Amino acid sequence: MAKLYVVGIGPGGRENMTLKAIETIKKCDIIVGYKPYIEYLEELVDGKEVFSTGMRGEIERCKIAVEKVKEGKNTAIISTGDAGLYGMAGPILELKDEIDVEIVPGVTAAFSAASELGSPIMHDYVSISLSDLLTPWEVIEKRIEKAAQGDFVIIIYNPKSKGRGNHIEKAVDIMLRYKSPGTPVGIVKNSGRANTKKWIKTLDSIDYDKIDMLCVLIIGNSNTHIKDQLMITPRGYKL
Amino acid sequence: MAKLYVVGIGPGGRENMTLKAIETIKKCDIIVGYKPYIEYLEELVDGKEVFSTGMRGEIERCKIAVEKVKEGKNTAIISTGDAGLYGMAGPILELKDEIDVEIVPGVTAAFSAASELGSPIMHDYVSISLSDLLTPWEVIEKRIEKAAQGDFVIIIYNPKSKGRGNHIEKAVDIMLRYKSPGTPVGIVKNSGRANTKKWIKTLDSIDYDKIDMLCVLIIGNSNTHIKDQLMITPRGYKL
Repeated sequence: MAKLYVVGIGPGGRENMTLKAIETIKKCDIIVGYKPYIEYLEELVDGKEVFSTGMRGEIERCKIAVEKVKEGKNTAIISTGDAGLYGMAGPILELKDEIDVEIVPGVTAAFSAASELGSPIMHDYVSISLSDLLTPWEVIEKRIEKAAQGDFVIIIYNPKSKGRGNHIEKAVDIMLRYKSPGTPVGIVKNSGRANTKKWIKTLDSIDYDKIDMLCVLIIGNSNTHIKDQLMITPRGYKL
Repeated sequence: MAKLYVVGIGPGGRENMTLKAIETIKKCDIIVGYKPYIEYLEELVDGKEVFSTGMRGEIERCKIAVEKVKEGKNTAIISTGDAGLYGMAGPILELKDEIDVEIVPGVTAAFSAASELGSPIMHDYVSISLSDLLTPWEVIEKRIEKAAQGDFVIIIYNPKSKGRGNHIEKAVDIMLRYKSPGTPVGIVKNSGRANTKKWIKTLDSIDYDKIDMLCVLIIGNSNTHIKDQLMITPRGYKL
């Protein structure tokens, strides 16, 4: 029986894909995804039927994928990073009825960015998306506040985009009520892809003009420090 | 020049390793790790010099790895999941002096467990380890409280181990002050490995006897629900 695979392809480059993600895409007849993400797959999609739609076409893509499986085709719908975080796993499972679905996990952007910055996560952390397209801004603000109060490492997805250019500044203002101004902040643009750029700053010295929707931010906890231009959050071992 | 690679090998099975993790281990002369994790690598370590130590030998392993690189050998020190979360990246970067280090990210247990439960994460979430070996229990309690107040999905690592058998019950008691008793809870033992077991329960019906140190727990937010024996946290799309 045909099956729908929801595949996390990792941050972008082939090297951070899992064996299972690669094998799954190889064995599917149909590949569905956001156009720029399909391009990361390069020759893996050669000879396959590809359905790509633009930004905000998420639900359209899910419906195409479900329909193709019902026509008897093994189908992969792809997300960057992990499909189960801000990705396609949720809407697919909500929409599916009798079809068979398998989720293939992947490396999310936070861990890719962390590996490029040093070891900024290491300990208890929070992941928050600043996109208020699907979540009320008040909920996001409350979460930022609780995360800062708990002295978590904080990972920010979707720090900025058209129409919400100052969300990241508002988020940092909330954090500054509880975190020291000198708290290290790692910013990575295009993590795990070509043209990766990164900056290590402090909470009070962020250059907001350099941040866009392709960036992930990692804000340290009270023990995070910088050494040899690397951002390090200790686990707590006596060394 | 010889280099030290800190490699996240994913939850355990070969299929969830990234291409880069596999290629990195192949090109190293020396492999260092916790004994049971080395065994996951199977024939990848054939013909290599392997240094494995037991539980709580973390710093000993780091020191061996740094020393081997100084002797001119390309060396991989491995962590399960992602090396930058509760793994070896932090202590290695704290210990290293002039040697060259590269962190190779991997699929952490939370995302592997999530893929086995449905789409329980999907939205803003918190990751907390209940191990108080390196972190005061009061810090952990405070983080659980803030995470519950922020209506985050909560991922629990190290829910139980020898000498701290009731930490998970204490953690759930704190969550129950802010989360509904009917909140779905996914429990996965040996995620991504042979003999995976999973249970989907609610916050007030957890069978604590079944939980051990090989389990990861995912506690839903106020929108998480169960459908067809899958745990689903909606992203918020209108379907």
